[in-house]
Amino acid sequence: MRRAIALAATPGVPLHPNPRVGCVLLAPDGTVVGEGYHHGAGTPHAEVEALAVAGEAARGATAIVTLEPCNHTGRTGPCAQALIAAGVRRVVVAQRDPNPLASGGAETLRAAGLEVETGLLAEESEAVNPAWTFAHRHGRPFVTWKFAATLDGRSAAADGTSRWVSSLPARRDTHRLRALSDTMLVGTNTVDVDDPQLTVRDDDDRPVAAQPLRVVMGERDLPADRRIFDDAAPSLHLRTRDPEQALRTLYTEHDRHHVFLEGGPTLAASFLGAGLVDEVVTYVAPMLLGAGRSAVGDLGIPTIADAFRLELLDTTVVGSGPEANVRLTLRPTLRGTH
Amino acid sequence: MRRAIALAATPGVPLHPNPRVGCVLLAPDGTVVGEGYHHGAGTPHAEVEALAVAGEAARGATAIVTLEPCNHTGRTGPCAQALIAAGVRRVVVAQRDPNPLASGGAETLRAAGLEVETGLLAEESEAVNPAWTFAHRHGRPFVTWKFAATLDGRSAAADGTSRWVSSLPARRDTHRLRALSDTMLVGTNTVDVDDPQLTVRDDDDRPVAAQPLRVVMGERDLPADRRIFDDAAPSLHLRTRDPEQALRTLYTEHDRHHVFLEGGPTLAASFLGAGLVDEVVTYVAPMLLGAGRSAVGDLGIPTIADAFRLELLDTTVVGSGPEANVRLTLRPTLRGTH
Repeated sequence: MRRAIALAATPGVPLHPNPRVGCVLLAPDGTVVGEGYHHGAGTPHAEVEALAVAGEAARGATAIVTLEPCNHTGRTGPCAQALIAAGVRRVVVAQRDPNPLASGGAETLRAAGLEVETGLLAEESEAVNPAWTFAHRHGRPFVTWKFAATLDGRSAAADGTSRWVSSLPARRDTHRLRALSDTMLVGTNTVDVDDPQLTVRDDDDRPVAAQPLRVVMGERDLPADRRIFDDAAPSLHLRTRDPEQALRTLYTEHDRHHVFLEGGPTLAASFLGAGLVDEVVTYVAPMLLGAGRSAVGDLGIPTIADAFRLELLDTTVVGSGPEANVRLTLRPTLRGTH
Repeated sequence: MRRAIALAATPGVPLHPNPRVGCVLLAPDGTVVGEGYHHGAGTPHAEVEALAVAGEAARGATAIVTLEPCNHTGRTGPCAQALIAAGVRRVVVAQRDPNPLASGGAETLRAAGLEVETGLLAEESEAVNPAWTFAHRHGRPFVTWKFAATLDGRSAAADGTSRWVSSLPARRDTHRLRALSDTMLVGTNTVDVDDPQLTVRDDDDRPVAAQPLRVVMGERDLPADRRIFDDAAPSLHLRTRDPEQALRTLYTEHDRHHVFLEGGPTLAASFLGAGLVDEVVTYVAPMLLGAGRSAVGDLGIPTIADAFRLELLDTTVVGSGPEANVRLTLRPTLRGTH
């Protein structure tokens, strides 16, 4: 299974909306007769690739798979049927499929007389697809809220200027994190005022090949010439101010699993208030403004005991000298525990 | 000289208001005939201690001293005269004395026919007494501004509550830093509203032996029952709102070399605005408030290009788990460089 997980985690093209999966086929004597991993939407699944390698040797073999073989026909046929047809005798699965549309593979295999075992290194296997797993389990994308602020918590000066609070190395680091998501989300106000393009660029400032979906949410009409609507990447205007509805739509209608929220203080407060922020990434810039826009809007918190508390997961200095910013990665904890 | 610096840096009682000094006496053949270091105000200076050890062997010896021998009679006689009287032939000095009241030792020694050399490892020697050196050079104490704030830069919630923004390990760390200063400074408003005792306590919450002077500045009258005026440590009410005047008084009338500023946003803004903050220590607490008191008041900064910029010197996570706070140590850089 460790080999299957390593195969699943092979660096390569982003798989969105599919999970990374690895598969190893073992002959009854323990010899590896086939290996495979999923290369991206529309290409053969890991099991099918491994079966193709094994050919006749798949008969009577044991399939070691990081994820429960799918049971539905998407752009490719169901893997459960492929394993049955190839004469595989036993299937060892790490993670059960959390996707309601694709699950049921284990039952299909058992009904066909195959031996099925699940749960081996399940956590390690989930860690290969954390946002994908989260999204299918919760019926909404995982949300990372990113903001940059001064030491006194300002994300813009009194006159609204905010270029730049964070340093160039911090902004490059943000692009790296954006690329790990499949959706960038801001509010209509940010598009109106800051007009960001919201593309992902590499260290040489060139757009990367796989761009996340650019989403602006809010009821307000927006001019068509805003940069978010240019042809550099797909974009979408969600006509709602409700975070829950926006996330549900992104999951159910657009197969989105990981939202990178870069909105202003009002949008951030609305997601935080709804309990819909799963991770916070903040770049602390070594400057003071003394006035200007706060990083987050009113959260309705009257007293210190009710503070919105987070757990610090990581502290990293990004950049050096006058360009040093401190990146903090945090996860919200339960409210009211003090 | 390295040995003399090591002697000067001997851990022990705080020397305030005196500098740490080390002295080594070498016979003409290079043999060490005496060593000494200053143990604190009112006790013999390093040179005098070394001379006492050497006795007659001081005649014709070379004195290696981290600081220019003093030329004035304070609570002890001038060291320059002691060296001359003992028959020392040559004096090697690291740091020239920046204290206008005590300087001139080198000239006195030369006038008496001794060979004097200065500047050897001067920087290393200054580093033994950074605040003392700064204070005498600038005619005012070195100022460390410390504040604790949430990720969104709040130092108190909407209802004014602020206990606690920083975690217990962070507050203990603050006491450790307080003990490195000789003066704690707050404004009348902090004394009125928060009524802090401003003593330094050890990790078992017991007051340490050497307490910094507790100073409150501002024109307002204060009730005598405020905790800052209790008998746990000396305290002082400076009737001024002007940072420059307060620092000048603390230096000239109270021999203060290192102020630990823990005031509220208005006092902080007034020191920052006057360019009288030399170091910033901030504890970033992993929480959000969305409203409440900002860590720093209005600095009159209209736009991002005019931000008050600092250089990040150190990033340390203090405490762990839910008690993890991030301590940033910074130094202001020149304004308007962007």
